[in-house]
Amino acid sequence: MRIPRRTFLGGAAAILPAVSAVLGTASQAANQGATAAKARRFRRIATEEAFTTPELAEAWRELARTASNSNLDLPFIKSIFDSPEPGSIRDEFRRRLLDIENERLRIMDEAGVDMHVLSVTIPGVQMFDADRAVEHARRANDRLAQAVRRHPRRLAGLACFPPQSPVRAAREMECAVRDLHLNGFIVNSHTNNEYLDDPKFWPIFEAAESLGRPIYIHPRSPSDGMAEPFRQYNLAGSIWGYAAETGTHAVRLILSGVFDRFPRLKIVLGHMGEAVPFWLWRVDFMQARRTGEGMARKLQLKPSEYFQRNFAITTSGVESHDVLEFVLKVVGDDNVMWAIDYPYQPSGPAVAFMDSAPISDATKAKVYHQNAERIFHIT
Amino acid sequence: MRIPRRTFLGGAAAILPAVSAVLGTASQAANQGATAAKARRFRRIATEEAFTTPELAEAWRELARTASNSNLDLPFIKSIFDSPEPGSIRDEFRRRLLDIENERLRIMDEAGVDMHVLSVTIPGVQMFDADRAVEHARRANDRLAQAVRRHPRRLAGLACFPPQSPVRAAREMECAVRDLHLNGFIVNSHTNNEYLDDPKFWPIFEAAESLGRPIYIHPRSPSDGMAEPFRQYNLAGSIWGYAAETGTHAVRLILSGVFDRFPRLKIVLGHMGEAVPFWLWRVDFMQARRTGEGMARKLQLKPSEYFQRNFAITTSGVESHDVLEFVLKVVGDDNVMWAIDYPYQPSGPAVAFMDSAPISDATKAKVYHQNAERIFHIT
Repeated sequence: MRIPRRTFLGGAAAILPAVSAVLGTASQAANQGATAAKARRFRRIATEEAFTTPELAEAWRELARTASNSNLDLPFIKSIFDSPEPGSIRDEFRRRLLDIENERLRIMDEAGVDMHVLSVTIPGVQMFDADRAVEHARRANDRLAQAVRRHPRRLAGLACFPPQSPVRAAREMECAVRDLHLNGFIVNSHTNNEYLDDPKFWPIFEAAESLGRPIYIHPRSPSDGMAEPFRQYNLAGSIWGYAAETGTHAVRLILSGVFDRFPRLKIVLGHMGEAVPFWLWRVDFMQARRTGEGMARKLQLKPSEYFQRNFAITTSGVESHDVLEFVLKVVGDDNVMWAIDYPYQPSGPAVAFMDSAPISDATKAKVYHQNAERIFHIT
Repeated sequence: MRIPRRTFLGGAAAILPAVSAVLGTASQAANQGATAAKARRFRRIATEEAFTTPELAEAWRELARTASNSNLDLPFIKSIFDSPEPGSIRDEFRRRLLDIENERLRIMDEAGVDMHVLSVTIPGVQMFDADRAVEHARRANDRLAQAVRRHPRRLAGLACFPPQSPVRAAREMECAVRDLHLNGFIVNSHTNNEYLDDPKFWPIFEAAESLGRPIYIHPRSPSDGMAEPFRQYNLAGSIWGYAAETGTHAVRLILSGVFDRFPRLKIVLGHMGEAVPFWLWRVDFMQARRTGEGMARKLQLKPSEYFQRNFAITTSGVESHDVLEFVLKVVGDDNVMWAIDYPYQPSGPAVAFMDSAPISDATKAKVYHQNAERIFHIT
């Protein structure tokens, strides 16, 4: 199974740049980007940038129409992928998610963004049955790898995988790195209301650790078991629910002992770390007390030490210098990466936010590109 | 109903200081405290300090034994109030919660703490039926007021109230301020899984606003509708669940429009603001977008502006200078108050944390006492 894919992509890599050059637009945009880059001080690598494929967009539309449950992500999916109002921001999101090489590269050029680290937007393949999830992940990763090969200086990519089938997920992850040369992985928090600390998911961590690539835990809305208080005020999504869901997922991972079993596993969190940095003092204090009381699993390190060793965070969607300075102090400047959250956040302000950040040039270089280059193996 | 209480307490106020002086221990401790204070630079008012009454302790023990639901607070209540292991930290919590005037004052003196702003510990009266809740609140507030009157320089108090019956809650709140001269109110997040943004609770906000006293929204474990992911790893309590529950409550209040209806209402949050300060940029951004899309209620101010106008926060349980400096920048130095979270957190380190905080003396004076004096009407 792996060989045909590698062969196919080798072929694609060989011919597609030429095709792209003939087609024009995309490579012109790429050239403009290269020119603009000369005048800039820092390479700008944006690390949480969303896209989708036509197949996934269609599958999500069908999901939004047919799902009979009350999962909190469905209204979001429906609003974007099932006939968004023409001209609305949801319509724009849909168009920009489906585009990888045209409008996206133009917008990157306009804002002076060198590279998007692409990942499939929520809910990824996590709301399909296992077989469809495997198939969708495969196709999406193939498409992603092709785009990256056509624009190696402008695009990198995080592979999706089907947690519904951890063993097949691990196989896809291996293929995504070894054959497709993608840069890491993305998962959208819970899968069917289950969290990755459950040992049944650990083949996924084993694969990520042995491949030496990080898993970006992107938010999704709170799982059904914590959904109720988020059903009013449109609270489920980016305004609040994403944070409650994803922060909880991260703390579960830490307290479960996952990082004693997989000490080299790297998890990336967006949104300045989903507020986990804010809570590290308290989590450390309470973990120490509870361990003393026999109420918690004994861990080799303090929770904050795992956070510094096993996590990296990105600035996506939180353009506050106060928060940036705070997280740099708490998690260190080797573990913070810049991100826009395209197309959900505008690119210009995300650049202006980092350009104007009151931090040293050395730190800015780390946040803008050096940390991403190291963590995602970007050359 | 109000007149006998006022009369009784007027009488108590007149005679109890004398009785206390004769009885010795408590007032000796108070005197020692006053002496120690002379050598200190700042008056230290701790603003989230827990106690209970024998009646409540007994009622909670019964609750822990008889409750047939899976509410996440029950294991905590059981561990402290239903035969904690002798000599354990839970046993110490129970003893210290039940003591107001002896061990507490000694510990305050040892740590150099001038004043505890007392409040009934979780779950307060919120897990009883309405009639019992009304009765328990009344008795607990009477006891609290008596203790404060015996030690007016060492103790202040926040009244509990029964949200199960908002009209009777408002009546108790009025009595607590007008007759008992207490300093504000305490509530432990949800009541029977409902949040205070529900208009049925608004008599409570009306009372607080018209009385000019704040409501401290203390954490409790996540409500049943968001409980599931917190059932493992003892995640429900102070290590993580409290934050998810109480932060969600605060954001619901802001987005519901409560503060347009009650512009002078003041809400106090512990634990450095339950991470809401961390999220204000994102909440502002998303609220603006959603309002533009017609997906959110139009509010008069930005969410962050309500947070600065209608909230104050305390340092309870988060002894990190990085977090302190961050919240001072985001919410301003008029809205941060020092707290220990006695008896759950040790007093000495909480004092050392604030004494050593790298902030100006003017700011330290505000955090240590001036803000509490203003917000809680402490003389």
